[in-house]
Amino acid sequence: METQNLETILDMQNTVITPTDLLNHWQGHRRVTRRVIEAFPEKELFSYSIGGMRTFAELVNEMLAMAVPGMKGVVTRSWDQYNDASGLDTKEGMLKRWDEATSAINEYWTQIPAGRFQEVDVAFGQWKGRIHETLSYFIDNEIHHRGQGYVYLRSLGIEPPAFWDRN
Amino acid sequence: METQNLETILDMQNTVITPTDLLNHWQGHRRVTRRVIEAFPEKELFSYSIGGMRTFAELVNEMLAMAVPGMKGVVTRSWDQYNDASGLDTKEGMLKRWDEATSAINEYWTQIPAGRFQEVDVAFGQWKGRIHETLSYFIDNEIHHRGQGYVYLRSLGIEPPAFWDRN
Repeated sequence: METQNLETILDMQNTVITPTDLLNHWQGHRRVTRRVIEAFPEKELFSYSIGGMRTFAELVNEMLAMAVPGMKGVVTRSWDQYNDASGLDTKEGMLKRWDEATSAINEYWTQIPAGRFQEVDVAFGQWKGRIHETLSYFIDNEIHHRGQGYVYLRSLGIEPPAFWDRN
Repeated sequence: METQNLETILDMQNTVITPTDLLNHWQGHRRVTRRVIEAFPEKELFSYSIGGMRTFAELVNEMLAMAVPGMKGVVTRSWDQYNDASGLDTKEGMLKRWDEATSAINEYWTQIPAGRFQEVDVAFGQWKGRIHETLSYFIDNEIHHRGQGYVYLRSLGIEPPAFWDRN
């Protein structure tokens, strides 16, 4: 038991990423996702899909439903019910909401309690895991669904933004 | 300058994820990707695509080209040239190569030098960044292209594995 604790402590001291690194990583991905939203024609953003999957707008609603409400739960330890009904029906409105989320995430990030990333919690009262896993889930889910968006764009004959460019 | 250094040190001590967390995170994603490879019919794995994109086999070759050769560079600080010609042309052979990579990644992981995650290096002699960014790139690239694979499967009428199940 003591040996295992020591190993865990040494493992924790070998810093992989700092909190600021993780924020920059997420916001870098969110800049790419914003460009994918922009690349969709207005009509197809809300109507186009392949193989019976959701439209890209519906996928963006999911990302938005996780991001700021998720950060609120991370910071306050109090979770609202998950709700991805955004009421958005224009590209302009969606980009505006996206930018508001960018600021809100930055704002919440500075308020994450020390040690919080390794705490176990139940996100949205439903999904149990350590906070770093919950945050990774938000980011990975965005990458996953944005990957779908790339296929939608390509099949519409539209060149998607570069995956590797996070600026 | 001193204030900034102090902030960086405090930021680094607020552990986000441990090295072991990151390995588990990656291998969890790799288990999902393995199930996506398995879900493809043999013929479509090597031939099917949408909108002129690469086949899923070509995307898997890219993941394989980053994973073990990347870990070799992370551990040894010596990088081979990037090469995604796998020579694989059967699903069985691809799954076998995938499983060999799983073991090799685990093996290399225990040898990552202390402090290495925050070092700047030039991956494959081409891509500059901190090692944690390089590793995130390998993982994110896999999630991104696997997301494409989900659309390929859905458009073939095949249910993809659950994104959230990493076991």
